[in-house]
Amino acid sequence: MRIDIITVLPELLKSPFEASILKRAIQANLVEVHFHNLRDYTTDNYKSVDDYQFGGGAGMVMMIEPIDKCISALKAERHYDEIIYMTPDGETLKQGIANQLSLKENIIILCGHYKGVDQRVRDHFITREISIGDYVLSGGELGAAVLCDAVIRLIPGVLGNETSALTDSFQDNLLAPPIYTKPREYKGWKVPELLFSGNLPEIEKWREAEAFKRTKERRPDLLDE
Amino acid sequence: MRIDIITVLPELLKSPFEASILKRAIQANLVEVHFHNLRDYTTDNYKSVDDYQFGGGAGMVMMIEPIDKCISALKAERHYDEIIYMTPDGETLKQGIANQLSLKENIIILCGHYKGVDQRVRDHFITREISIGDYVLSGGELGAAVLCDAVIRLIPGVLGNETSALTDSFQDNLLAPPIYTKPREYKGWKVPELLFSGNLPEIEKWREAEAFKRTKERRPDLLDE
Repeated sequence: MRIDIITVLPELLKSPFEASILKRAIQANLVEVHFHNLRDYTTDNYKSVDDYQFGGGAGMVMMIEPIDKCISALKAERHYDEIIYMTPDGETLKQGIANQLSLKENIIILCGHYKGVDQRVRDHFITREISIGDYVLSGGELGAAVLCDAVIRLIPGVLGNETSALTDSFQDNLLAPPIYTKPREYKGWKVPELLFSGNLPEIEKWREAEAFKRTKERRPDLLDE
Repeated sequence: MRIDIITVLPELLKSPFEASILKRAIQANLVEVHFHNLRDYTTDNYKSVDDYQFGGGAGMVMMIEPIDKCISALKAERHYDEIIYMTPDGETLKQGIANQLSLKENIIILCGHYKGVDQRVRDHFITREISIGDYVLSGGELGAAVLCDAVIRLIPGVLGNETSALTDSFQDNLLAPPIYTKPREYKGWKVPELLFSGNLPEIEKWREAEAFKRTKERRPDLLDE
């Protein structure tokens, strides 16, 4: 899989891709991630990527021309399955979308910044708009990093233990059950006895019941789906 | 405002706080952000922070002791308004929670990693559990960065133009309307004429209608709230 990220702040994106699971996935050639600085596609001396919005109002808008140039250059090199724009008014990211995107070959992710991009970019170049949640961030970069993390960890071979992702929250519309590790007792707080019984079917039953209970208490909406 | 982030991967968190709006907010002393490496609070030679889960199953669990030590050390220094654990089964982050947290003085954010933390940490130390959305990430670090960005940009003085955050998506349960900037025409794609009319009340009316239309099409659930 190849991911091209278009941004005005490639330096902001650096460290999440240089640590932990994303770093390992890149080093193992399971995914390629390329950052493209939008300023490299500007034509004026100031390397302007944004300007005031027509009609007045606070906040700058990212111009269509550098974005068009960057996307066109990438599309001339290879076919892209999706050109994604990170925006709070996009489709809300869910585990199912991450599962879906993890099967793609090439995707472009465009990070908005300032007030967002000129509407014509969205109308003519973008194939999918994704939001990571109902809140506003200072730019699309963290959203892009979140999307990449959610997607890349699902690529076969990225997680050490392949069964691990399947027992995560959301994979079956249930939250994960409580988990415990050493020590068995800490400051008087004990781990449920059953977990030491060695009775795996009973432990499995308990975990399922706890997962269901937690989902019912915290996220009954997931059970309706 | 002061934010203390507890993590096993402080290096992953670096760059988002060293660029753009978060960097400026920190430099202007509008917020202090401190990273705490959980490994500094371990007692064994291997600096272990995690172990296998009791009862069997894939994935490692973060142990209670180093987390207790780190949180206790911080609490001995000052009062914390919230001790937040980033977890996919927490309360879903919404703009309203970000608004609320931006008024706090001191908060701790604990990033889970691997399968998550020992349940006793959640039962005894955590005051609030937050999820940034219905998907699973390889750790809580990106979630913590997202939460910090959403919160910090709301602190007065952080955004250049104070009116800017108020016209964002979600602040009034409406998505933002389309925005446009130069050039007026690009490859035959034109900006709506009204935006050049100088008729500000009409432009405002059009924007409201477009925001409503977009919300109705994309996120009718927001209109029910």
